[in-house]
Amino acid sequence: MAYLVLNGPNLNRLGKREPDIYGSATLRDIEVRLQRIAEENQTELQAKQSNHEGELIDAIHRAADDGLKGIIFNPGAYTHTSYALRDAISSVEIPVIEVHISNIHAREAFRHTSVLSAVCFGQIAGLGVFGYELAFSALLKLNKGELKE
Amino acid sequence: MAYLVLNGPNLNRLGKREPDIYGSATLRDIEVRLQRIAEENQTELQAKQSNHEGELIDAIHRAADDGLKGIIFNPGAYTHTSYALRDAISSVEIPVIEVHISNIHAREAFRHTSVLSAVCFGQIAGLGVFGYELAFSALLKLNKGELKE
Amino acid sequence: MAYLVLNGPNLNRLGKREPDIYGSATLRDIEVRLQRIAEENQTELQAKQSNHEGELIDAIHRAADDGLKGIIFNPGAYTHTSYALRDAISSVEIPVIEVHISNIHAREAFRHTSVLSAVCFGQIAGLGVFGYELAFSALLKLNKGELKE
Amino acid sequence: MAYLVLNGPNLNRLGKREPDIYGSATLRDIEVRLQRIAEENQTELQAKQSNHEGELIDAIHRAADDGLKGIIFNPGAYTHTSYALRDAISSVEIPVIEVHISNIHAREAFRHTSVLSAVCFGQIAGLGVFGYELAFSALLKLNKGELKE
Amino acid sequence: MAYLVLNGPNLNRLGKREPDIYGSATLRDIEVRLQRIAEENQTELQAKQSNHEGELIDAIHRAADDGLKGIIFNPGAYTHTSYALRDAISSVEIPVIEVHISNIHAREAFRHTSVLSAVCFGQIAGLGVFGYELAFSALLKLNKGELKE
Amino acid sequence: MAYLVLNGPNLNRLGKREPDIYGSATLRDIEVRLQRIAEENQTELQAKQSNHEGELIDAIHRAADDGLKGIIFNPGAYTHTSYALRDAISSVEIPVIEVHISNIHAREAFRHTSVLSAVCFGQIAGLGVFGYELAFSALLKLNKGELKE
Amino acid sequence: MAYLVLNGPNLNRLGKREPDIYGSATLRDIEVRLQRIAEENQTELQAKQSNHEGELIDAIHRAADDGLKGIIFNPGAYTHTSYALRDAISSVEIPVIEVHISNIHAREAFRHTSVLSAVCFGQIAGLGVFGYELAFSALLKLNKGELKE
Amino acid sequence: MAYLVLNGPNLNRLGKREPDIYGSATLRDIEVRLQRIAEENQTELQAKQSNHEGELIDAIHRAADDGLKGIIFNPGAYTHTSYALRDAISSVEIPVIEVHISNIHAREAFRHTSVLSAVCFGQIAGLGVFGYELAFSALLKLNKGELKE
Amino acid sequence: MAYLVLNGPNLNRLGKREPDIYGSATLRDIEVRLQRIAEENQTELQAKQSNHEGELIDAIHRAADDGLKGIIFNPGAYTHTSYALRDAISSVEIPVIEVHISNIHAREAFRHTSVLSAVCFGQIAGLGVFGYELAFSALLKLNKGELKE
Amino acid sequence: MAYLVLNGPNLNRLGKREPDIYGSATLRDIEVRLQRIAEENQTELQAKQSNHEGELIDAIHRAADDGLKGIIFNPGAYTHTSYALRDAISSVEIPVIEVHISNIHAREAFRHTSVLSAVCFGQIAGLGVFGYELAFSALLKLNKGELKE
Amino acid sequence: MAYLVLNGPNLNRLGKREPDIYGSATLRDIEVRLQRIAEENQTELQAKQSNHEGELIDAIHRAADDGLKGIIFNPGAYTHTSYALRDAISSVEIPVIEVHISNIHAREAFRHTSVLSAVCFGQIAGLGVFGYELAFSALLKLNKGELKE
Amino acid sequence: MAYLVLNGPNLNRLGKREPDIYGSATLRDIEVRLQRIAEENQTELQAKQSNHEGELIDAIHRAADDGLKGIIFNPGAYTHTSYALRDAISSVEIPVIEVHISNIHAREAFRHTSVLSAVCFGQIAGLGVFGYELAFSALLKLNKGELKE
Repeated sequence: MAYLVLNGPNLNRLGKREPDIYGSATLRDIEVRLQRIAEENQTELQAKQSNHEGELIDAIHRAADDGLKGIIFNPGAYTHTSYALRDAISSVEIPVIEVHISNIHAREAFRHTSVLSAVCFGQIAGLGVFGYELAFSALLKLNKGELKE
Repeated sequence: MAYLVLNGPNLNRLGKREPDIYGSATLRDIEVRLQRIAEENQTELQAKQSNHEGELIDAIHRAADDGLKGIIFNPGAYTHTSYALRDAISSVEIPVIEVHISNIHAREAFRHTSVLSAVCFGQIAGLGVFGYELAFSALLKLNKGELKE
Repeated sequence: MAYLVLNGPNLNRLGKREPDIYGSATLRDIEVRLQRIAEENQTELQAKQSNHEGELIDAIHRAADDGLKGIIFNPGAYTHTSYALRDAISSVEIPVIEVHISNIHAREAFRHTSVLSAVCFGQIAGLGVFGYELAFSALLKLNKGELKE
Repeated sequence: MAYLVLNGPNLNRLGKREPDIYGSATLRDIEVRLQRIAEENQTELQAKQSNHEGELIDAIHRAADDGLKGIIFNPGAYTHTSYALRDAISSVEIPVIEVHISNIHAREAFRHTSVLSAVCFGQIAGLGVFGYELAFSALLKLNKGELKE
Repeated sequence: MAYLVLNGPNLNRLGKREPDIYGSATLRDIEVRLQRIAEENQTELQAKQSNHEGELIDAIHRAADDGLKGIIFNPGAYTHTSYALRDAISSVEIPVIEVHISNIHAREAFRHTSVLSAVCFGQIAGLGVFGYELAFSALLKLNKGELKE
Repeated sequence: MAYLVLNGPNLNRLGKREPDIYGSATLRDIEVRLQRIAEENQTELQAKQSNHEGELIDAIHRAADDGLKGIIFNPGAYTHTSYALRDAISSVEIPVIEVHISNIHAREAFRHTSVLSAVCFGQIAGLGVFGYELAFSALLKLNKGELKE
Repeated sequence: MAYLVLNGPNLNRLGKREPDIYGSATLRDIEVRLQRIAEENQTELQAKQSNHEGELIDAIHRAADDGLKGIIFNPGAYTHTSYALRDAISSVEIPVIEVHISNIHAREAFRHTSVLSAVCFGQIAGLGVFGYELAFSALLKLNKGELKE
Repeated sequence: MAYLVLNGPNLNRLGKREPDIYGSATLRDIEVRLQRIAEENQTELQAKQSNHEGELIDAIHRAADDGLKGIIFNPGAYTHTSYALRDAISSVEIPVIEVHISNIHAREAFRHTSVLSAVCFGQIAGLGVFGYELAFSALLKLNKGELKE
Repeated sequence: MAYLVLNGPNLNRLGKREPDIYGSATLRDIEVRLQRIAEENQTELQAKQSNHEGELIDAIHRAADDGLKGIIFNPGAYTHTSYALRDAISSVEIPVIEVHISNIHAREAFRHTSVLSAVCFGQIAGLGVFGYELAFSALLKLNKGELKE
Repeated sequence: MAYLVLNGPNLNRLGKREPDIYGSATLRDIEVRLQRIAEENQTELQAKQSNHEGELIDAIHRAADDGLKGIIFNPGAYTHTSYALRDAISSVEIPVIEVHISNIHAREAFRHTSVLSAVCFGQIAGLGVFGYELAFSALLKLNKGELKE
Repeated sequence: MAYLVLNGPNLNRLGKREPDIYGSATLRDIEVRLQRIAEENQTELQAKQSNHEGELIDAIHRAADDGLKGIIFNPGAYTHTSYALRDAISSVEIPVIEVHISNIHAREAFRHTSVLSAVCFGQIAGLGVFGYELAFSALLKLNKGELKE
Repeated sequence: MAYLVLNGPNLNRLGKREPDIYGSATLRDIEVRLQRIAEENQTELQAKQSNHEGELIDAIHRAADDGLKGIIFNPGAYTHTSYALRDAISSVEIPVIEVHISNIHAREAFRHTSVLSAVCFGQIAGLGVFGYELAFSALLKLNKGELKE
């Protein structure tokens, strides 16, 4: 029983990238915190970041083949355009929660639309890197049957 | 030091209303869970629900006058049309987190737009009534200075 | 076994308000005629008018709690904007028929769209205050099982 | 003194066609009921159905030449596109009431717009084949001067 | 060497139909005037009116088979929607001039767009029934080679 | 002979609310200045503020019943969405002048559209709280017959 | 067990009409090739072309009454506008495959939208008159149960 | 009793400018032909061309002050954008006929809209420079009372 | 210390032009009233009207070079299209108040948008020629520091 | 002389992915069937699938360098967004036929638009995996010169 | 052999106008630098600035009459609206390069569209006044035949 | 101190690809010319081309890590859709100049929009491969402090 935290384009630059928008925590910081939660819950966490749309699709497929139980997904700017990622999520039965560090609904107009939401379980936006932790706790609760799916 | 959970139109019917979309928990259930969190954190939680846009605006103003520290706000269908609520939020300095029980981004097109998001701190959608608890934990963390504002 | 005739904003001014568009009958005239039909059909008719969106929502909720059998609803200008009323109608199981005194489809563009129709049983427009009577006869027929629901 | 019930494309298939949407009554059933109302009111009812836009236009012109007193018109899918039918209605002085068996405002987006409404007297939608009877009673009332035109 | 004057839906009602918009001349009056011009120019004029889109298409095809030299075409309301008539005009090599009695560009928005113009030679609008005569003189000039095609 | 100054949602927070946009004068300050003008002109001024759309509609109806001579109306954010207020203004014969403290045409796109303007006498925007005084002087002039209506 | 090849407006001019777009084969040529395939498969093929929308609707209804097994349909320009044809297809249970000789998706913008596709089984475009043969082979395969319906 | 032929931007380059679209006649050629028609009709023709929007407005005002009887107006590209010219035409009572040498409805999308048509008497497009002569004959007929205004 | 009243296209025809919309006062009448106000306030008023967009731009530039203190600007129809005037206003530091004699927000759709408002100080519409006087009093107040800029 | 069957994102999951939409055949099944057709026609078939837009572009370029004779291309969700793939197809001279297993024109709105069609030879949609075979037979016919290109 | 640098509205204020956007160089500075380049290349440079659309059109016409070899054109805000300037450019055969000092594609939405680009040779934006020099070097290269036209 | 010339999808086919649009120079030719300029300016030029969006993002990140001083970027068709590349550019502090060989503003509508421009320094379009050289000279000038950033 394992989970995947999947990060899309430019999230490898967290900490260095526009810190007034994205904060100063790095991707490594996020993964460390999520690992701790995983351990506390006797489960496993895998982590993957890629700037390549195709690799993100591959990662979702592999998660299905490996029987993972949930994906915490920050799709970066692919959120707004990638119907291929949407189809990838539809093509697997794993629940996916979208996480956005900044409040995308309060930024440029193009960031207000997520083409992925229609096939995701839920969305957390604007709560900084803490959003990843909240998403993980929701997935854990979901797999305990305490959150209606 | 206190917080407000504010619920908009039709949320008084939670539990009775379209349970396949909104689940079977009632508004009272939500408030009880949040009270428990408040107690654990030595803080106070006020609760208010109204179907009247004007009363929701009044409640936000009163929260400012009373010096509350955060609002967990599920604006119901006013999310999509009420610029008056948006101005009410702008007119106070309290951080507000939008909560939606269902994944509004995956439902009818009119639910994809929130006219409030631009002035809210963040948004949680689709995680059922657990979303309220996550929002509360984010506000608490924010007031401890552990979440960038 | 009872029904509700519910009138929205500005319909309290019927008779005084733009009589070339809305005719000279008053709201009281309408209610009297509907009462007569109710009596002829051994049923009861309740009547409510409000300019407050919130009160209209409350009235719909109360109708459900009271076990009413149908609502004849002229939502006035809230027809075109109130998703909160739409959710109120969705949140109850009572059939609702929209009535518009004038032919809204032949007036200003903003009146051509009803955000409520998607959750109403049917719509009558342009037949003056007689439309209320036609709507009532349809609801009565529906509850006799003579109109497919 | 006579009336016309005019049915547009595909209404010849009523009863056979998608009965969950359109019910099981046939066009003949409708005409029989309307004939009965006509007799009760000492007036005459003519009936015409055609899948041809041109024949519907011809029928409206002929109704004017024959001095008919009203048209109950279900234009089927021509409702949404036929400016030629709109001009035909404008070119005569007979009051026309649009009838739609299903609640067109609650179906696909293209069915929400009627290009004919602007030149019709009123519209009834979603009340099944009973809508034809209601429209007839409105036309009779109108010709008695009891409905403002 | 002959020409066709082709009139579309509702133009059979000219003189009777909304005379403040369309004037009091009848279709017969127009044809008589055009016949006189035809005679003065030693050519022949054929005339056809139909409310049926299909018959108008057939007439255009037949004009090509008969080797006619030009079509004066008032497509009525089909102007704004009939891509089938557009394809009919494209499918023949006869020059077609659109005539509109009223100034369609100054009326309802739907009348501002002609889906036929892209395949017609030119357009005359708003000059009353005199527009037909002007169109005929342009076609005659064109066939004398005095108007660039 | 009396006038009404009517203020909509969030204007009770003037002075406290975003002073860089709305200035530091309070609603009380505005009312005092208008009272002074009323006295100088031997007329009466009534004042009302509400965050409730329904109460604003009620106030407009009451102004008509009381025979008031003009309304100075700052509808706040209801300016942009409330067709119910528009119908309320249409339903009375009192001239209404819209006042906006900030230059709404120079702010967010949603503030550029007023659904009320079509039924108001005129509009003043961007001149701060002085706009109320200018509107009052225009209404006084209008009732002296020195401003064409 | 029989099939129908149904051709819409202007397809009677195939071979004569814009041969650079539509090629030089005539409608007769197409029907001959399809007859040959019908014979090879021990089935029957009926053929119909009309420029009249109403006749095309009639033909679809008749096909249902006659128990045909499939329709190869080139709706010509009615593809882009005829909701009446769409309803005709919905009103029968016969599978329909849209065929377009040219690649409509690569031509003028109005040709990119088919209002019929939503109720058809599939679509072939741009493969010239060979598209009719491919559509026939798909229908045959479908009726053998070798193509999921 | 006199008329004005008014030509807008770039029409001074007629003959030199894109002759495949606009032909080889020069502005002088057009004016000579119209002068001949003026003489035959015992009236006077004034001619003006300008690339300056302001000068075209001035010319229309002057035409009103001088009591001219009609304007033949080719507004060039100002057709599609100049509300100032539209107001100039509204501000005078002289009938104006729009002339376009090319068939603007068959060219780039921006040329399909005329912001002037709503206040012009009629429009002729695509008939080359002969269009000016047709427009003049329509104005002459109009002033003889033989064309309804 | 001086001010400029600047009038755009067609305002030279005030009094003659559509008096039901624009009233019977002339531009000279307006200037006389404003001169009187200027004298009462010991300041100077310059006046300029032009139908030429370029001259209006030049006038704004000159006002800056001459150190004027404010511009009362009725841009006529250039209000809706002239980004060049907008840039002219941006390029100077003088406060500009837009004045519209009629209530542009209640007229044709194209008049609802001002491309200039974003760079103007405020706007007055629908208060007839009295609007100019109100604008002047606002500018005077502004320069006394009694209106926040 | 060889052909390429190229499959885009998520098509590696055929058979496993939403079988009610895409059927139960796998990509391998498709390739086997196409190989058989290739052999029957003494030609060669290459096969490639990738979830990476860049690899699909590379594959198209390589096909050109290798002198392939046609591409059967199912671009998956890149159909709707990838102008880069469109340019790749334009940059080579090989005919490409788009294949879609499901009837994309009958699904979500975003699937109705193909940004690739404008540069493809033709399109087959909704005929299941049989569509690939039909596309191959069309390409073979094309290279025999029996299909106009 | 000569060139023209043509500047549109408000560019006479360069240096004084919003220096954070447009920099501190004046129009004279630009002309001096371009003169130097002209001399180095043994060619001539003419310079013209105007705030009047008509004068810019006249200048383009005159450039053609004088046989100039290229135009460096900064159309200012006319870039976004002037179809008359577009037609002026089309009416001559001189290559025109658009120059914008600021990066118009990164500013307000209305600045993202150039109605002139379709008839210009190329565009340089955002490179400050150095853009004029680059445009000149491109025109010189073009006339040496070293840049494909 | 070094620079990067980065080319996106399909630019590897320069010279072979649609030479009437893109010319006959190859990517190698461009790089050679830019190397020469680099040498003349005692700086270094790196070159990279990829059809993979992810690799382009990686290259931009690497340029930042390596401290490069500027990027000459032709994003090919990703220009119009890649918000991921936009975020990559935002996430680094290196100035980027967009180069397009053809005049994208004069081609298909989808090429008129660049989602990257808002975060680039400037743009050069339509000047063929010479545009790369101009961009390089602008970057060099910028780093000498002679171009305002």
